[in-house]
Amino acid sequence: MAKVYLVGTGPGAPDLLTLRAARLIESADIIFHDALVRPETLALAHRAKLVDVGKRYGKVSPDQRFINRALVEAARTHESVVRLKGGDPMMFGRAQEEIDALEEAGIDFEVVPGVTAALAAASSLKVSLTKRGVSRNVAFVTARRAPGLPDNAWLETARSADTVALYMAGWQAPEIAAALIGAGRPAATPVALVESASLPEERRTFSTLGGLLTETLPEPAGPVVLCIGEVFRERAAAQSIEFSYAATA
Amino acid sequence: MAKVYLVGTGPGAPDLLTLRAARLIESADIIFHDALVRPETLALAHRAKLVDVGKRYGKVSPDQRFINRALVEAARTHESVVRLKGGDPMMFGRAQEEIDALEEAGIDFEVVPGVTAALAAASSLKVSLTKRGVSRNVAFVTARRAPGLPDNAWLETARSADTVALYMAGWQAPEIAAALIGAGRPAATPVALVESASLPEERRTFSTLGGLLTETLPEPAGPVVLCIGEVFRERAAAQSIEFSYAATA
Repeated sequence: MAKVYLVGTGPGAPDLLTLRAARLIESADIIFHDALVRPETLALAHRAKLVDVGKRYGKVSPDQRFINRALVEAARTHESVVRLKGGDPMMFGRAQEEIDALEEAGIDFEVVPGVTAALAAASSLKVSLTKRGVSRNVAFVTARRAPGLPDNAWLETARSADTVALYMAGWQAPEIAAALIGAGRPAATPVALVESASLPEERRTFSTLGGLLTETLPEPAGPVVLCIGEVFRERAAAQSIEFSYAATA
Repeated sequence: MAKVYLVGTGPGAPDLLTLRAARLIESADIIFHDALVRPETLALAHRAKLVDVGKRYGKVSPDQRFINRALVEAARTHESVVRLKGGDPMMFGRAQEEIDALEEAGIDFEVVPGVTAALAAASSLKVSLTKRGVSRNVAFVTARRAPGLPDNAWLETARSADTVALYMAGWQAPEIAAALIGAGRPAATPVALVESASLPEERRTFSTLGGLLTETLPEPAGPVVLCIGEVFRERAAAQSIEFSYAATA
């Protein structure tokens, strides 16, 4: 019987895949992948059958139970089954449901970690999420509503953490900023919106929590990480100087 | 003039390096590396001069300002300078001080993200840090004292986050547990201590916050991530069943 590998593909740039992930993709018999996994990454597969099980916003997409069943079924008919997830599987990846299904069916599996989007965003911004005397903790949160938890469960953590990386923040940035200001974070807190971190189409926008309420933000065309905290102050300031130089040039 | 690359090597397993990191190590002229970077990873270097600038607990180690100066100097005398850091450079990696020194000296640089230890720990535990109806946010914190911030800055974030990954927790687990219980987290909260995540010598210990106060914990021989939260409950319970089976077998 096969082994199933739940594999993080990292933020998107094909060379931010781990060596282990690349090897598993190359030798897989069948690959189930999310919508965020890039064609360049899938092209590493030598012989695998590719199955797109991506969830796309606003489109009909496979039910999680369908994916769970498909993984179990594939393990019974193939030798090496790879389940690719954007970023890291254990961070906002819905991995636990697939893990539970595999364990219940008695199927051997491994999880391969990946580079999570917020860390790719920090690298692109060239800003460390922790900084001596400024930040010693980082919260990874999402404000997306989810069943079983209060709608504002994210807010207390995002209010108190030195640095916050808010996933899936695309269209909600103004509401998130309003909630954080309401919870006591200063409107002057610097923020950076990083869209499609690590990809050629990456965009970085600097502002403040207060700015997010009033400024016209670019419409997101890819996944957005909203980075919040004092560690971004100098980079945001340098960026607005660059902008004003450009405007007067 | 050279380019400097600040590169995360991931949690330790050589094949959890990214493809980009591997390529940069292979082609580097000079490599400055931390104590946590493994010999197998350094062996990828085809021609680089290797400089160990690792900080080791209780031993004389290079001053951060010395490292900053060495990077700037190397950029003036080499073509490709690589600075390797365990895990991800932007998470507890002291990267900002090196970034500031490079920017001040006008040296071109890039940051390459890596797999951070807590995500490798989650993969090893086979427990997702986020889980539908249980956890929608994750805090990465350290309780190590640092100048410029209050000693308990970590506590408010670690108290409110659904899941907590506490870095550099090796010898402090009982004090950390006492502080969290004092701040209101239930003593029955499940925890998992993961030492040397992803390496052959990895060890996983399951307990509860209350258990950390009274149980004799293994003396840490490598970096420890203390994972805290309800998401670990089932795995911890299954583990104690395994232990009692083993004891009665």
